[in-house]
Amino acid sequence: MTAPEDKNMDELVALCKRRGFVYPASEIYGGLRGFWDYGPLGTALKNNIRDWWWRCMVDCPPIGPDGEPVAIVGLDSAIIQNPRVWEHSGHVGGFNDPMVDDKETKKRYRADHIYVFYPKNFKTEHKRFGIAVQASSREEAHKLRDELWESGKWSKVVFRAQKEFGFDPLEGAGVGAQYGDKVSDFLNVYGPNGEDIGDWDVITAEELDEEHRKYTTNLELTNFGTLTKPQMFNLMLDTYPGPIRDEDAKAYLRPETAQGIFLNFKNVLDTMRVKVPFGIAQIGKSFRNEVTPRNFIFRSREFEQMEMEFFCPPEDSQKWYDFWRDVRYKWWLSLGVAEENLILRDHDDDELAHYSSACVDVEYKYPFTAPGYGELEGVAHRGNYDLTAHSKSKEKNRDSNAKLDYFDQELQVKLQNEGVDKAEIKERSRYVPHVIEPASGLTRAVLVVLCEAFTPTPDREGSKYILSFKPKFAPIKAGVFPLVNKDGMPEVAQKLYLQLRDKWPVEYDGKQSIGKRYARMDEIGTPFCFTIDGDTLEKQLVTVRDRDTAEQETIHIDQVEAFLAQKLAE
Amino acid sequence: MTAPEDKNMDELVALCKRRGFVYPASEIYGGLRGFWDYGPLGTALKNNIRDWWWRCMVDCPPIGPDGEPVAIVGLDSAIIQNPRVWEHSGHVGGFNDPMVDDKETKKRYRADHIYVFYPKNFKTEHKRFGIAVQASSREEAHKLRDELWESGKWSKVVFRAQKEFGFDPLEGAGVGAQYGDKVSDFLNVYGPNGEDIGDWDVITAEELDEEHRKYTTNLELTNFGTLTKPQMFNLMLDTYPGPIRDEDAKAYLRPETAQGIFLNFKNVLDTMRVKVPFGIAQIGKSFRNEVTPRNFIFRSREFEQMEMEFFCPPEDSQKWYDFWRDVRYKWWLSLGVAEENLILRDHDDDELAHYSSACVDVEYKYPFTAPGYGELEGVAHRGNYDLTAHSKSKEKNRDSNAKLDYFDQELQVKLQNEGVDKAEIKERSRYVPHVIEPASGLTRAVLVVLCEAFTPTPDREGSKYILSFKPKFAPIKAGVFPLVNKDGMPEVAQKLYLQLRDKWPVEYDGKQSIGKRYARMDEIGTPFCFTIDGDTLEKQLVTVRDRDTAEQETIHIDQVEAFLAQKLAE
Repeated sequence: MTAPEDKNMDELVALCKRRGFVYPASEIYGGLRGFWDYGPLGTALKNNIRDWWWRCMVDCPPIGPDGEPVAIVGLDSAIIQNPRVWEHSGHVGGFNDPMVDDKETKKRYRADHIYVFYPKNFKTEHKRFGIAVQASSREEAHKLRDELWESGKWSKVVFRAQKEFGFDPLEGAGVGAQYGDKVSDFLNVYGPNGEDIGDWDVITAEELDEEHRKYTTNLELTNFGTLTKPQMFNLMLDTYPGPIRDEDAKAYLRPETAQGIFLNFKNVLDTMRVKVPFGIAQIGKSFRNEVTPRNFIFRSREFEQMEMEFFCPPEDSQKWYDFWRDVRYKWWLSLGVAEENLILRDHDDDELAHYSSACVDVEYKYPFTAPGYGELEGVAHRGNYDLTAHSKSKEKNRDSNAKLDYFDQELQVKLQNEGVDKAEIKERSRYVPHVIEPASGLTRAVLVVLCEAFTPTPDREGSKYILSFKPKFAPIKAGVFPLVNKDGMPEVAQKLYLQLRDKWPVEYDGKQSIGKRYARMDEIGTPFCFTIDGDTLEKQLVTVRDRDTAEQETIHIDQVEAFLAQKLAE
Repeated sequence: MTAPEDKNMDELVALCKRRGFVYPASEIYGGLRGFWDYGPLGTALKNNIRDWWWRCMVDCPPIGPDGEPVAIVGLDSAIIQNPRVWEHSGHVGGFNDPMVDDKETKKRYRADHIYVFYPKNFKTEHKRFGIAVQASSREEAHKLRDELWESGKWSKVVFRAQKEFGFDPLEGAGVGAQYGDKVSDFLNVYGPNGEDIGDWDVITAEELDEEHRKYTTNLELTNFGTLTKPQMFNLMLDTYPGPIRDEDAKAYLRPETAQGIFLNFKNVLDTMRVKVPFGIAQIGKSFRNEVTPRNFIFRSREFEQMEMEFFCPPEDSQKWYDFWRDVRYKWWLSLGVAEENLILRDHDDDELAHYSSACVDVEYKYPFTAPGYGELEGVAHRGNYDLTAHSKSKEKNRDSNAKLDYFDQELQVKLQNEGVDKAEIKERSRYVPHVIEPASGLTRAVLVVLCEAFTPTPDREGSKYILSFKPKFAPIKAGVFPLVNKDGMPEVAQKLYLQLRDKWPVEYDGKQSIGKRYARMDEIGTPFCFTIDGDTLEKQLVTVRDRDTAEQETIHIDQVEAFLAQKLAE
């Protein structure tokens, strides 16, 4: 297995384009930053993961801690909702980042991702050494530091600052590069000849005062010009449904599917035969006006989410949090992701939202974060924050017309049997349910599965790469080939193809050399190829070729369907 | 079977809400006009139809006219594309309707859907008799006319106008009501006492001149106030991805999925092993800022489409048009729609777009159009209009960087063999493919399946309605019940439930009387209920109850899975 560190994202992105997985959106019009189209194979891969999540969460959810199957129902809420939703959810007021604009390039950056370095005892003649750099993940910064160090062109000034002020500008959020930027853009920035210009100080762009701001001027080798003061910038895309275009009519494209679930908590409770604890699951598109979309489909402006909100009694919420933490980690393993590339990272207290008592991220070792890990799924204990936010309340000026609480009859009976006193029973058996939220990205899952499957095979004849998807998730389950395009082989192959395609997406291919056909199937991740040759005509034997080992075996043509069914069930 | 005429939409909408199929979006915030959320059962129903379309179009497309399986690949393109796309597709310039605003109610209407009636020999004192009415379909107008006529309150003035000017204001687009409006809103509008006020004239809102416009004043019993002059209004919702908010950065939410397919024609051709003729299919959300969303989910502002663009040689396009016309009609029958409720309606020449040589609508007899039919799917011969629009062309100021034509090697060889002369071969074997487009709505398909299945059962004990879905499309395939919640029956039922839910979405229900459980399953359209009773414990026999007939039979418990599998395969 190739380690994530040894996988090259540029090669993967190129393969995804070349083999019909992911195309840049509007490519013939020069593209549109942060938007991607899923090609025929990417769509199939995405649908396979979507269906597997839906099966594991909705149609056949896991057995819960008490031995009974967990109750979860599906939902598909609208992308555009009443604008009041986002005011009460906190997204209108709180889904903002402090942003600074680069006056020259007109680009916009998160202020707390930009650090400005300038000499202490600041003098005008030093202004050319001011530099603003952007980074958003520890792993990216580490990786860049290593690359810069190894390049031998890194200015010693940085290391002075680091040592003398006890601050590593590369640790945390010091220096980084966007995916696609060249490392050389960042080289030699502290004076082209590594001049020693004295002590350096480091502040964030938010802390920049007028005096300093004017010196964050163009340095030939950086990406930044003069930065504006930080301003708040909302991540939601807005639009105006209906005929009127005023502030009241301004609606938003949802930045998460979760709120659609909270909105329908009462509808589901009233119309389905569910009782707390139960979950509502949803898959669908969301939109965020990311300032710096990057890392291929990792951070895009239009993406697909898979979210489930599990509503439970407050007193059982820790149990359910632990349950989902475990179940969701295992689900990622079920996609065929290696355990060593997947970690659970508990949030520190200072990372948690004020209403949240616990949150854990499932993180994956992406090629662009390796040897570190990057975000994949969050399992959050959200308390009763969301349902309370959408509950009717005149005092709190909430527009909602519904009370989103729950009367727990079973708990009431249980407490009565335990002899708990009446007042306490009353208090404990009517509550606003707590919520455990496993929230992940479908498009990010596609990226993980692609990264995991991506295997350079420099020594293999024909294919430069294989995509070693777990067979269940492969876009095409099998190739069916006549060895040569004559002697009755195409007819037999066609018949087998028609038989198999009734059950699974398979491909018939009768063109080119068999080696080239195998190579293409390797690159699109087709786990098995069945070749009809002379032995088939004589002895009904079909050659099965395995994508990962390139080994071949023969089986009876009548066994092909059962063979494939077994492999796909694994 | 209940005729569409005898199905009441209000009852269906209420059932859909009450049983978790479709909820108004943002209901707890008072809703948002034109947006709907799909509840647990509506989502399941929609997914079932989605998957069936995908299977029939992408994974296992039909055998073509020449005996070979048709080649179709899937796609999932972004909702937001480069804004230039919609300029060249014609949507920025052409996707406009002439709209008039009602100054009093601030509502907006399509000018060509509004007809203004006023007395000939117009005099100021007659102004109170001016009336504007809106309608958009022939069927709606017919239905309303009949209702009004039968009500006995219809003013004779209208019939005077109709006779004397050779114009039936109800024929075409004369009078109508929006779904949800009460017919009584339209009664007596020509004078509360049916006064005869002389000859009437009829013009559309577009033709209204200043003099007349000011007299389209509030009539107590109509929906209209003073109408503005018609203005063009674009149906696309817009938004601003990225940091900049100016005209250049303005992007659109796609009003159709089709353009994403044309944008990727070349990508697919270059990266998949397809040759013309082939198709690209896509399912996804689209948005249209409909002026008057109505008829439940029939016309909403956010909806889901299922579109396929089939690219073929110009000289074969008629053959493929005929092929898809036939295939698509049959597909709707495969959903369980009765043949008498489904028609193919060829467009008249004057309905066709200038580039289109033929178009046919599959129409369904909705309860709100019956005895007439309403739009469901269009199969259009689009010529080479779309690919040409997105092709590179400096002369025509097209921004695209790609030539979207095709060199047809097979045709070249065929023509050579036929001895066609070189110049003609050259001309005929490189072409911009023609496109046959079967375009339908997934959300509209959900509506059709709901309307078709909806069956009032006033005589049945327990259930007021059944939803008689074809078993394959039912959200829940089976109910599994213990007859009573004791005597070991729950354990046996649970075991059967766990066995079945591994294959299909099924429900376990152990509460309430068996009659009530049946009734609920009838209303949610579950085709079969398996009840575990004394006979099961003694003789391993399970009672199977059929939703449509309410009849019961017994089968061996080991046969349940096979029984269900067979019914679901039908």
